[in-house]
Amino acid sequence: MPSPSTAPSRDPTPWVSTEIRVRYAETDQMGLVYYANYLVWFEVGRAEFCRQRGFAYRDLELENGAYLAVAEVQCRYHVPARYDDLLAVKTRIEAFRKRTVQFQYEIVRGQPEGLIASGYTLHVVLDAQGRPRSFPATYRQLLQ
Amino acid sequence: MPSPSTAPSRDPTPWVSTEIRVRYAETDQMGLVYYANYLVWFEVGRAEFCRQRGFAYRDLELENGAYLAVAEVQCRYHVPARYDDLLAVKTRIEAFRKRTVQFQYEIVRGQPEGLIASGYTLHVVLDAQGRPRSFPATYRQLLQ
Amino acid sequence: MPSPSTAPSRDPTPWVSTEIRVRYAETDQMGLVYYANYLVWFEVGRAEFCRQRGFAYRDLELENGAYLAVAEVQCRYHVPARYDDLLAVKTRIEAFRKRTVQFQYEIVRGQPEGLIASGYTLHVVLDAQGRPRSFPATYRQLLQ
Amino acid sequence: MPSPSTAPSRDPTPWVSTEIRVRYAETDQMGLVYYANYLVWFEVGRAEFCRQRGFAYRDLELENGAYLAVAEVQCRYHVPARYDDLLAVKTRIEAFRKRTVQFQYEIVRGQPEGLIASGYTLHVVLDAQGRPRSFPATYRQLLQ
Repeated sequence: MPSPSTAPSRDPTPWVSTEIRVRYAETDQMGLVYYANYLVWFEVGRAEFCRQRGFAYRDLELENGAYLAVAEVQCRYHVPARYDDLLAVKTRIEAFRKRTVQFQYEIVRGQPEGLIASGYTLHVVLDAQGRPRSFPATYRQLLQ
Repeated sequence: MPSPSTAPSRDPTPWVSTEIRVRYAETDQMGLVYYANYLVWFEVGRAEFCRQRGFAYRDLELENGAYLAVAEVQCRYHVPARYDDLLAVKTRIEAFRKRTVQFQYEIVRGQPEGLIASGYTLHVVLDAQGRPRSFPATYRQLLQ
Repeated sequence: MPSPSTAPSRDPTPWVSTEIRVRYAETDQMGLVYYANYLVWFEVGRAEFCRQRGFAYRDLELENGAYLAVAEVQCRYHVPARYDDLLAVKTRIEAFRKRTVQFQYEIVRGQPEGLIASGYTLHVVLDAQGRPRSFPATYRQLLQ
Repeated sequence: MPSPSTAPSRDPTPWVSTEIRVRYAETDQMGLVYYANYLVWFEVGRAEFCRQRGFAYRDLELENGAYLAVAEVQCRYHVPARYDDLLAVKTRIEAFRKRTVQFQYEIVRGQPEGLIASGYTLHVVLDAQGRPRSFPATYRQLLQ
């Protein structure tokens, strides 16, 4: 029987939410947010997800030499975000396997209310030399 | 019988290739290219695809008031790109429908040789007020 | 005697402070923040300066057709900022003339404490067609 | 008498020119290039300056553990650059001292012709631990 810390987990975690305000730098000449910047907000969501689970993603790298390299990303753009919008980035772990972890995101605006974008990122765990490794046990338990 | 300019087309076009060199600004502290920047390269690929088909994407916006808003993006990261790498961005149209167009991309490195990333973007055609419109006929013929 | 709203003002305003957390996207392969991103933080500082003075910079553009185009920027990098650092962006107006306004910035870290960067931006006020215009009187009074 | 490779040099080098095309990602909702992106082009100019002098900046870091950290930047914005503009980034070394090097830049557009922006960056040479060091002699000779 696998131990709880290494068993695959496919039940999504609860959502963790963090606020961002759209920067002028993030707009383009269409007057909307440039599409690549939503991926930056996904990253902000991941960092806050870790922090609210009890650790800094920075320490995962610095103290454990474990890196969450992105293997795949998908984003669907529902309603455009605009300069100075106050948005919530909602993040959860959708699936946690031995060497991969999949995060899911929803970007939501309060006023006017609506789902702005949604997507996921799939990550593989690498060591400092770029080789696959398993997720450090302590952090795995915090995330699940 | 539908006219050639409005019939849906699902045969992919030939690939169009353009070169980019990885900028320092595009790396992150993992020593690799930050994952959102591949989407910027996709955009460079789209612009060069249009140019090699005989028009500037800029004129599509300026002269026709037609905007290709991104509705969805997916990117798979196969091998990391690094600072100063010389890469080819290969772009083609995968599917052309009345109000949407789907581009496909492959990012390839020459030395050492390999497929770096692949993905697609799905676009809807909007007018200057953000309402769906059909693709301007002249440009549709150039793209197909 | 000039009216208060159009007289040049060279006394700096009080500082307004806002917090930002360094994003992974903002680092480069040196393991530090890429130098151009400090200018993005300056922009975040300007937006919060306006907000704390009672208006959104967005409305200056939308409702008044007035744009603060950057004419000059200088930034001095004292101590490098790193991923996940929590920083204060301090902003004030250094000089307010008829058609230009100069903002000054200090980026400060709490732990370990220190001045990270300092600089200024000089702006000219333009209308929607890119022609110089004077600063809208209402906003000028809020800023001074 | 100081050897040629370590003597301070204040005569500017000849200009080295490289082409860039403005990306959609680099524009903002003012319809012009966002001001921080000119610093990215400065970096592209520096990299090409090194390459045309016979080495890759990448190797300076990888093979010599020498890093050109930015200590100061100034940029003047003369005429706005727009999406799809083809620009020349002209770069030269303005001053070369024992532990610092100052690059100067001019960004020029061919059509319509004009000086877009100009500026400089001042760099200190650091080792991999972030301590000041002198410029590797081989590279110094290539640059001067």
